[in-house]
Amino acid sequence: MCAPGCQEHVFARLSRRGFFRGLGVAAAGSTLPALPALAQSAPRANRVIDLTHTLSPEFPTFFGVPGIAMKRKFDFKKDGFNLFDWEVNEHSGTHIDAPIHFAAEGAGPAELDPRSLVLPLAVVDVQAKAAANADYQMSVGDIEEWEKANGKLPDGCCVAMNSGWDKHVASPKFVGKDANGFHFPGVSFEAAEFLVRQRSVWGLAVDTLSLDHGPSKDFKTHYLWLPSGRWGLENVANLGSVPAKGATLVVGAPKVKDATGGPTRLLALA
Amino acid sequence: MCAPGCQEHVFARLSRRGFFRGLGVAAAGSTLPALPALAQSAPRANRVIDLTHTLSPEFPTFFGVPGIAMKRKFDFKKDGFNLFDWEVNEHSGTHIDAPIHFAAEGAGPAELDPRSLVLPLAVVDVQAKAAANADYQMSVGDIEEWEKANGKLPDGCCVAMNSGWDKHVASPKFVGKDANGFHFPGVSFEAAEFLVRQRSVWGLAVDTLSLDHGPSKDFKTHYLWLPSGRWGLENVANLGSVPAKGATLVVGAPKVKDATGGPTRLLALA
Repeated sequence: MCAPGCQEHVFARLSRRGFFRGLGVAAAGSTLPALPALAQSAPRANRVIDLTHTLSPEFPTFFGVPGIAMKRKFDFKKDGFNLFDWEVNEHSGTHIDAPIHFAAEGAGPAELDPRSLVLPLAVVDVQAKAAANADYQMSVGDIEEWEKANGKLPDGCCVAMNSGWDKHVASPKFVGKDANGFHFPGVSFEAAEFLVRQRSVWGLAVDTLSLDHGPSKDFKTHYLWLPSGRWGLENVANLGSVPAKGATLVVGAPKVKDATGGPTRLLALA
Repeated sequence: MCAPGCQEHVFARLSRRGFFRGLGVAAAGSTLPALPALAQSAPRANRVIDLTHTLSPEFPTFFGVPGIAMKRKFDFKKDGFNLFDWEVNEHSGTHIDAPIHFAAEGAGPAELDPRSLVLPLAVVDVQAKAAANADYQMSVGDIEEWEKANGKLPDGCCVAMNSGWDKHVASPKFVGKDANGFHFPGVSFEAAEFLVRQRSVWGLAVDTLSLDHGPSKDFKTHYLWLPSGRWGLENVANLGSVPAKGATLVVGAPKVKDATGGPTRLLALA
């Protein structure tokens, strides 16, 4: 999906923008917001909605090489049981970005407060705008529009951008690669800053490959959001199946020592 | 932790007992029980309890070799972000056994009904018996004792054996290897059969390396439970921190194509 040298290209692009590295902590400024009592945020639910894509070697990746390779170690017919080893890039498929992914120091998925993995979910619908512009960035205006319809964002919530991009996952459109780079929607720096400074938000989720939109050359949203101690979710599926407000998100982030993220099962209770 | 050749030893032991392969489906007989409405099984919760051990290369494994290797691909200081590849045995750490792990055909973690990943949790305390006998097997009597105190097992629940073995995870006692093999508690065939035939249970969890106790040479509980379409959880942590009855278990099983299991984030809402 990506020309030879793609990984190096991305790497070089990131390194050239190294001056953004320290931006996050300074820009975020505030400490993490307190989490509300669970009973307030997790109302009785009737449905479980799976927000996870199935990860396979065919799943599109940022680096243009397979995100996972399956190596069969035991076979039922011969051995009496089935078992695989996986070689997996920890930022493949539907996955979590822990703070340490874009920070010199910070929590990995194993260090996150388990309480922060069960949160109210707010889904911001930007599908029409993204359909008109593959490089669309969710804006402060989009969030304000959500609040006009649903009230203020609930404390300690996860805000998810629904650009409708999950429907393109089997198409080249998901990555949108051309001679200039990638084309897919993301979250604007200003919207991320608004959520950090003006609201009590723990998680930021997108249904695309990256919190930053495809054309980003500086990954400003990553460098703001993650070093602030918050987590991100990428390649989220089925956001069109959950209500804009009222669902509870359970983040099944893997608990792996030293990890900076990992393939994550996302279940919404609604 | 395991002598050279251990993996081969386990493999040979399993293969010799190949005649058990078909046992599960036949023994299980019944179809999977219906799941209750979520609202009945998931009462409002106040706490999130993490039932997951942190997976690292030091985590004890059945095969006596590290269950995961972390390979650093990018480093924040040099590259502006951190990222690892993992090479992981999918049955390492706190993990799910999907039906296909011990069956010719069956669901992997990606095919499980998401509804079956959010269940009432029943914790059966066998700590005293396991402390007196490292080879202890949870019995039908233990389940009946639980029901005497708590009422009939809730429909569509997960039954978890709390042997207290999670406290031994950093000690050789967790695996309990000697010249004769392993020594740790598990679930008896008769107890598993009782849960399949007499009760409406979807999941079976243990705080040890295996659904079958350490000395098992035939893995009868695996061959009964998994081919029936039910899932298992192994190396569960912190079961002493959840009530015997009333918690809701959320199973963050990875959604990986072709997988037979995988490191799983387990969160209890209580």
